[in-house]
Amino acid sequence: MSAGREVRRREENELEFSRIVAFSDGVFAIAITLLVLNLTVESGLPGDRLWHEIWDLHEDFIAFGISFAVIARFWVVHHHFFGEVRAFDGRLVNLNLFYLAWIVLIPFSSRLLGDYGGEAAAVVVYAVNLAGCVLVGFRMNAYAHSAGLTTIDDTAHRENRIRAGYISAVFLLAIPVAFVAPSWAPLLWLALFFDPSSRLAARSAG
Amino acid sequence: MSAGREVRRREENELEFSRIVAFSDGVFAIAITLLVLNLTVESGLPGDRLWHEIWDLHEDFIAFGISFAVIARFWVVHHHFFGEVRAFDGRLVNLNLFYLAWIVLIPFSSRLLGDYGGEAAAVVVYAVNLAGCVLVGFRMNAYAHSAGLTTIDDTAHRENRIRAGYISAVFLLAIPVAFVAPSWAPLLWLALFFDPSSRLAARSAG
Amino acid sequence: MSAGREVRRREENELEFSRIVAFSDGVFAIAITLLVLNLTVESGLPGDRLWHEIWDLHEDFIAFGISFAVIARFWVVHHHFFGEVRAFDGRLVNLNLFYLAWIVLIPFSSRLLGDYGGEAAAVVVYAVNLAGCVLVGFRMNAYAHSAGLTTIDDTAHRENRIRAGYISAVFLLAIPVAFVAPSWAPLLWLALFFDPSSRLAARSAG
Amino acid sequence: MSAGREVRRREENELEFSRIVAFSDGVFAIAITLLVLNLTVESGLPGDRLWHEIWDLHEDFIAFGISFAVIARFWVVHHHFFGEVRAFDGRLVNLNLFYLAWIVLIPFSSRLLGDYGGEAAAVVVYAVNLAGCVLVGFRMNAYAHSAGLTTIDDTAHRENRIRAGYISAVFLLAIPVAFVAPSWAPLLWLALFFDPSSRLAARSAG
Repeated sequence: MSAGREVRRREENELEFSRIVAFSDGVFAIAITLLVLNLTVESGLPGDRLWHEIWDLHEDFIAFGISFAVIARFWVVHHHFFGEVRAFDGRLVNLNLFYLAWIVLIPFSSRLLGDYGGEAAAVVVYAVNLAGCVLVGFRMNAYAHSAGLTTIDDTAHRENRIRAGYISAVFLLAIPVAFVAPSWAPLLWLALFFDPSSRLAARSAG
Repeated sequence: MSAGREVRRREENELEFSRIVAFSDGVFAIAITLLVLNLTVESGLPGDRLWHEIWDLHEDFIAFGISFAVIARFWVVHHHFFGEVRAFDGRLVNLNLFYLAWIVLIPFSSRLLGDYGGEAAAVVVYAVNLAGCVLVGFRMNAYAHSAGLTTIDDTAHRENRIRAGYISAVFLLAIPVAFVAPSWAPLLWLALFFDPSSRLAARSAG
Repeated sequence: MSAGREVRRREENELEFSRIVAFSDGVFAIAITLLVLNLTVESGLPGDRLWHEIWDLHEDFIAFGISFAVIARFWVVHHHFFGEVRAFDGRLVNLNLFYLAWIVLIPFSSRLLGDYGGEAAAVVVYAVNLAGCVLVGFRMNAYAHSAGLTTIDDTAHRENRIRAGYISAVFLLAIPVAFVAPSWAPLLWLALFFDPSSRLAARSAG
Repeated sequence: MSAGREVRRREENELEFSRIVAFSDGVFAIAITLLVLNLTVESGLPGDRLWHEIWDLHEDFIAFGISFAVIARFWVVHHHFFGEVRAFDGRLVNLNLFYLAWIVLIPFSSRLLGDYGGEAAAVVVYAVNLAGCVLVGFRMNAYAHSAGLTTIDDTAHRENRIRAGYISAVFLLAIPVAFVAPSWAPLLWLALFFDPSSRLAARSAG
């Protein structure tokens, strides 16, 4: 299994390359769909309790929405990344599998967030999970760049680095906040809709 | 991530395009298969109770059948839609992901309908879920049409608009009915087998 | 949605055709993998009970093994069938979806068989489920043959008809047996390893 | 269904071949993602118990990590194996399906290991499951080699045999150890990071 050292070009190994991508897509698709299993209403309740029970799910629905958006976003980024990959080796495959292990954990963290949204522990687990995805994803990116496996140029790579740093910082910043005011921590993540990477990359390149 | 503004033609990005389609198919396939998890019989019952328990599942089987048919139909429509797409941009990808979020909720709503078919709350949740699928699906359709990303012509688009309006109206009409006679509301959905779109489109075009 | 009437040739619609196949494969793969969820051991038992509990799973393991083999076999047959398909229309797509609905039910029937292997009710549900798969599968086959959508010739088609009749007869024969001796009914299914189709087809063609 | 005897070359049956691979990838992707369902925290606990509960999951997280790595590794090996396959027959397809049946069992064994890591029974089940994967995988390999279906040469095949022997020996060795010191048995598996195959193959070929 000395696959780790051998670099294979994408054009000459189209089937193997597309299997890696298809396997990743499968994992993303299953993880995102399993989120629905976190939404459950006990059966056999009296009818007049049902509206109440559904209302009680609102935190689970919020966790579902956030996690669906997060996995979808990670999928789009993964999609762009592999769109630029021109060659692969065993190490890239392993990094990709390690990255997917973090993605697969999201339904678990999401359930915790839905059930215990007001508890620091749930926020911390969720934040660590997502920061893990971002950091391992960036590691994969950096490896592909340094080993010359992608067509991403230096400017784009600098942007990626800043973005990965920014996103993981936002997630991790939620941790101290969670100990003071757990319910507010997820609101911090709204900062993710502000994307500083192009501006900062432009500045640091200038 | 300025992907939202850049239009990519399908022929030049066949791999990326097929990944979007494959990911969507994966989500559809998983959501439709997860429906089976809504069918459960407690283990360890005495043997003579088993026929009774299986009979008690008849509402869950009806919900399974309706939801399987509904997801299958949405998949066929999605399939036709992407068969006509000639180019894509980040916005279409995001709309597609938002659409899939509504599809993924169907196993949850379906379980509710199976467990509480006679309650207004369950019918309302199911109707809102399906109307959401139709409306977001139509939004995606309309965007692709206005941005020139598909080969669908104006007549076909007008048909789509009428059909989306009709289907979501039928689903939403079930909501007031559900408050008066919840068990009857799903029967309304039989009206969906009548497809007025071609006739109305012909008339409104004439 | 007048798709039902329009016949599309496979070569000119390779993407659409492969999506149908990929979606079917996805459903098969998920259904076969969900079988593992039927194998559960309660957590938190005292250690010395664990061997006992695992032994108690032997009926669930048998049900897992049978159902895995059955779904795998249906997949192989589906695979062969679509390998011969040269054109498709909306009706074939719908028949395929209806067929998949029966496949998706197998994890449910299998769980019932594992939990209540000695009860007639469980055997009947399982037998009906599998006979349903075979008969709908044959219906799809017959439609494709009569509409000229496949390259299967008359001899092969006759073989298919005999095989479908034989297999569904074996499954359905288990039903009366189940009422007398439920534990013995699944043994009948061993008759499936004897495949009479080629011999009978040869004779009925002669 | 005399498919078992007919050898089909990959180039002339690219669609059928890629379906086999895609189906396998689907099963791997689902099995690896289902591992997350083994991680659960009861809902409705008082907040101060939550940290404690998450800590109590550490054995489940270890089982998750091991099993994710194991399935990922099996996938990589399967990927390499099918990358070398040049033709296939019904027997190879059946062996592949039998192999997948063992892979699908891993989430079950993994849950057992997470819940009962200190019990011999759990370690034995896990070890048997993984040794089963390795041995059936090797059987498939050996068949493909002897039937001339792959481009793997004799040296590589000898390496595979030694590796399969070594890996399954390590897994099975855990069984006697489990009866003496169950918690220590999984540590044995660290020996898998040492890969003796190339060295031994070189020696036995010399």
